[in-house]
Amino acid sequence: MQIRKALITAAGRNQRTLPLQTLVDRQGEPKSALGVILEEALSAGIEEIGVVVHPGDQTAFTAAAGPHARRLRFIEQQEPRGYGHAVWCGREFTGDAPFLLMVGDHVYISATEKCCARQLVEVATEEDAAVSAVQATHESKLPYYGAIGGRRIHGREALYEITEVLEKPTPTTAEQRLVIPGLRAAHYLCFFGMHVLNPAAMSLLDHAVKETSAPVHLSTALATLARQGRYLAYETRGRRHDMGAKYGFLNAQLALALAGADRDEVLAGIVELLAQRGR
Amino acid sequence: MQIRKALITAAGRNQRTLPLQTLVDRQGEPKSALGVILEEALSAGIEEIGVVVHPGDQTAFTAAAGPHARRLRFIEQQEPRGYGHAVWCGREFTGDAPFLLMVGDHVYISATEKCCARQLVEVATEEDAAVSAVQATHESKLPYYGAIGGRRIHGREALYEITEVLEKPTPTTAEQRLVIPGLRAAHYLCFFGMHVLNPAAMSLLDHAVKETSAPVHLSTALATLARQGRYLAYETRGRRHDMGAKYGFLNAQLALALAGADRDEVLAGIVELLAQRGR
Repeated sequence: MQIRKALITAAGRNQRTLPLQTLVDRQGEPKSALGVILEEALSAGIEEIGVVVHPGDQTAFTAAAGPHARRLRFIEQQEPRGYGHAVWCGREFTGDAPFLLMVGDHVYISATEKCCARQLVEVATEEDAAVSAVQATHESKLPYYGAIGGRRIHGREALYEITEVLEKPTPTTAEQRLVIPGLRAAHYLCFFGMHVLNPAAMSLLDHAVKETSAPVHLSTALATLARQGRYLAYETRGRRHDMGAKYGFLNAQLALALAGADRDEVLAGIVELLAQRGR
Repeated sequence: MQIRKALITAAGRNQRTLPLQTLVDRQGEPKSALGVILEEALSAGIEEIGVVVHPGDQTAFTAAAGPHARRLRFIEQQEPRGYGHAVWCGREFTGDAPFLLMVGDHVYISATEKCCARQLVEVATEEDAAVSAVQATHESKLPYYGAIGGRRIHGREALYEITEVLEKPTPTTAEQRLVIPGLRAAHYLCFFGMHVLNPAAMSLLDHAVKETSAPVHLSTALATLARQGRYLAYETRGRRHDMGAKYGFLNAQLALALAGADRDEVLAGIVELLAQRGR
């Protein structure tokens, strides 16, 4: 299986402007947050990127994409019907190919030479399966994420076969259904905001969209995917930063800078700010 | 003299999108950078704000102004002819009234209970004169600012009568013409990005705009203003942060957060990021 297409969702109410904001990337280059996300996808071998936008946002996104604009295909989400619906909007773009799914308001900092998207795409290619990136997350953060239950795949340190998917479970439910031996106490595998999905997942979304007029959650379709066949989770070596959280944009920029070429300059700036207090 | 009008310039190439980006203010409220700047002006007793924008940017700025949109009057700068020209575009809005002039890409952190704009407006009202906010700045940063020469006003710690204004002077020129006794060695009074100006200053700009088709610098007009009459500088108790600098947006957000209600939360985030390195 070769993964050449990516789908990025950026139509949500709080997602429309964040990708347009300016960040300085790890190399010290100022660019839009969208540019940082697109380069993450391109570094994973992606050639064509579908961007799900709010109608009319195409011009601003094209400008923010800079040199990568020619890689983009825009898809309008006509009504706000949830994340699953936004992904479903990309069904004609993805067609019968597997695809990398990313969100437009996250920044990823890999702990290795390979970017997070590349780590995930390589695992999915090798395993020839749908794979969701996950991260061990403390139960106090369960209200923000989808979480999985499953079992370790023998001999593979960071790979799991998913048996359950729950959207924002309570700690009690998580303890009953999502415990995975070997994780730190009170930690669960939560979604990282990055998946490799396949036409089977898209069919499940299609079914869900046509069955209801309510918001469609991706997690519900992924729970069915887990029941129907082989669907894996990969514990990514890196960190995600949700720019839409209260200090999320600040933390994303700090994480990029502190992991990058300008670490010393930015650290010096922090120290100077701390020293100025009260003057 | 009562100051009820403010003029904010936001038409420059790098100034058009920065005010639209989201910041969290000192109180911990997420809002646009424009919102933070507008609240600085409103806290100084300003009632009506003229915003000089690139043609067509009105809709985005109105949205970014949120609850303060009704205070705004938009003025288009039809061609990029320098900062002095942008200010001149506001001449009909300011009319025969004194006005607070601010830039759309700076954030100010006061070291006192009074915001920086209020400090400046109070001094200008009391002195009944044009006053520029200044800050003692190391000579290594002279390439970025306009700088003034002058003399201390007897008995007033932070107030100066301006005799010279030079745009981005070299250290040698500054040493010859801008030394003010009592400042730290190699420090000069540089503009803070905030002025209270009067119709006399606007007339000088009008003369300059009509005399040339080249870019018009505000500093040139202010140099003439200093020669013609009483024009003061006030050393503001606070710090400016230019969001347009490379890590300027990061530093502005950090400065707001570290001087504000969420200091502990943000410090904890920085420590966590530093601890994560390499994992």
